[in-house]
Amino acid sequence: MEQNASTTTTVTATALSPQNIKPLFKSIQAFLFDCDGVIWKGDKLIEGVPKTLEMLRSQGKKLIFVTNNSTKSRKQYANKFLQLGLTVTEDEIFSSSFAAAMYLKINGFPQDKKVYVIGEEGILEELALAGYTGLGGPEDGKKSVQLKPNCLFDHDKSVGAVVVGLDQYINYYKLQYGTLCIRENPGCLFIATNRDAVGHMTDLQEWPGAGCMVAAICGTTQKEPIVVGKPSTFMMDFLLKKFQVDTSKMCMVGDRLDTDILFGQNAGCKTLLVLSGVTTLSDLEDPSNTIHPDYYTSKVADVFEFLEQCP
Amino acid sequence: MEQNASTTTTVTATALSPQNIKPLFKSIQAFLFDCDGVIWKGDKLIEGVPKTLEMLRSQGKKLIFVTNNSTKSRKQYANKFLQLGLTVTEDEIFSSSFAAAMYLKINGFPQDKKVYVIGEEGILEELALAGYTGLGGPEDGKKSVQLKPNCLFDHDKSVGAVVVGLDQYINYYKLQYGTLCIRENPGCLFIATNRDAVGHMTDLQEWPGAGCMVAAICGTTQKEPIVVGKPSTFMMDFLLKKFQVDTSKMCMVGDRLDTDILFGQNAGCKTLLVLSGVTTLSDLEDPSNTIHPDYYTSKVADVFEFLEQCP
Repeated sequence: MEQNASTTTTVTATALSPQNIKPLFKSIQAFLFDCDGVIWKGDKLIEGVPKTLEMLRSQGKKLIFVTNNSTKSRKQYANKFLQLGLTVTEDEIFSSSFAAAMYLKINGFPQDKKVYVIGEEGILEELALAGYTGLGGPEDGKKSVQLKPNCLFDHDKSVGAVVVGLDQYINYYKLQYGTLCIRENPGCLFIATNRDAVGHMTDLQEWPGAGCMVAAICGTTQKEPIVVGKPSTFMMDFLLKKFQVDTSKMCMVGDRLDTDILFGQNAGCKTLLVLSGVTTLSDLEDPSNTIHPDYYTSKVADVFEFLEQCP
Repeated sequence: MEQNASTTTTVTATALSPQNIKPLFKSIQAFLFDCDGVIWKGDKLIEGVPKTLEMLRSQGKKLIFVTNNSTKSRKQYANKFLQLGLTVTEDEIFSSSFAAAMYLKINGFPQDKKVYVIGEEGILEELALAGYTGLGGPEDGKKSVQLKPNCLFDHDKSVGAVVVGLDQYINYYKLQYGTLCIRENPGCLFIATNRDAVGHMTDLQEWPGAGCMVAAICGTTQKEPIVVGKPSTFMMDFLLKKFQVDTSKMCMVGDRLDTDILFGQNAGCKTLLVLSGVTTLSDLEDPSNTIHPDYYTSKVADVFEFLEQCP
């Protein structure tokens, strides 16, 4: 039966099990974790995460947290981990907010140019740490527009980049501001932290993700963004510089096929899909799905359980 | 010189002039006008419009106003015309707000199902006139979300269609509401009034158009909408029933290539681009442009002037 099944589909994901976990575990030096839907949902830890991370550290594995959620800075993420009872340092965290700031830095974006932010505090914090002046963000969430004759909506001509991420305070003011910068400031960059359609902003349900705000700006500017978060491999360059580990000895653990798993595959990592977030088993097995992780399992804690149970 | 120019490009638009206007004018029984950028910019009439429309009526031409701007109902548009000193009846106005309601009616959308609106008063008014219950719209512009644990964002399971148009009160609440209806209510329709990237919401500049809000919902639902406004020919079916004029005897006058001119061409009308709105002469002449109207001119009033001057 199993042989027949495997001949009908050439690429399939293997269910992680006590039988096959040992060789994978031994070959991996660093585990890369997505956060939303993997470590937590909203503000709730997913069952069994603390003991699993603790076990991995005790076995000498490096832990790296790679999140597309741009609403927090690395510092804010370290605080969130701490509040959930997990000790994770800023150095172990790679957020798309950080990636946006690093993209500007690596590409020599001038310090005297400003950056307009459609997004939250995390992006502004990372921009400031990188020495840039950010405008917009939560502050502009309270602003409204006046659609009146002879009323000109003005924008800062020294804005040289617009960074768009998840923004729960999105409004028409910000959409117009970002659009004007991209359309009217010569050479203005359009950077997307990521394009996730939805995300677990709360434990109980999914909410519009950065892909919503990014698409809105694509719709009005008719331009495509530079994406710095997953599945773009931009963050991997940083990871590789900091953690001297060959990507074949890394395992990307995530709940999304089109960001996490694709990111891992693009970089040459092993990949493990967990079904504790946005992707269901039927999404994975759907004939229209073209992204197949090496392994899949229900949740991160299975790694702990299966290692305990393995022969 | 002119001969050479015409051999390099097979399809070109002809500049309207006193020399060529007479045959065009004689062949046309109905003029279809876009409004924003053609009749007015924001709340200001474009120069020479009143005398031109008056002359056209006096010459027995039918006038029809076809606008993608969904923020007003036909009744509200008739009031706007009146305030600007122009007498236009509701029967002569075809707005995308009306088109959205008519799409539901024609397709037998049940009266007991509700319609969630990301958009403004015009859509709600037209829905009500068609006998439908609209939710959302301006009212939800003041609502905010609570991203808290154990907090479920609830939505009405009897919503069977989401209509998305230009919405200056767009916010995260509406984006989540519309997304939940489309993703979770079985068979829920996703209708876009139009996909204009920008529009002259004020006389002095352009603002994000319905294309911005529609793209945002595409980004989060990963679905494509049914478009009822231009360039979709959906509204033309109504026009043709009401005004018994062959489309070859209609001339579509608009300021946008990808909506107005394409709409006219899709329906088999003559087309006249006016440069008083979003399209510039260099946009028209750009090699990347594939939409070529029959004629172009600077503004509607040229029709008046050229007919006065013609030999």
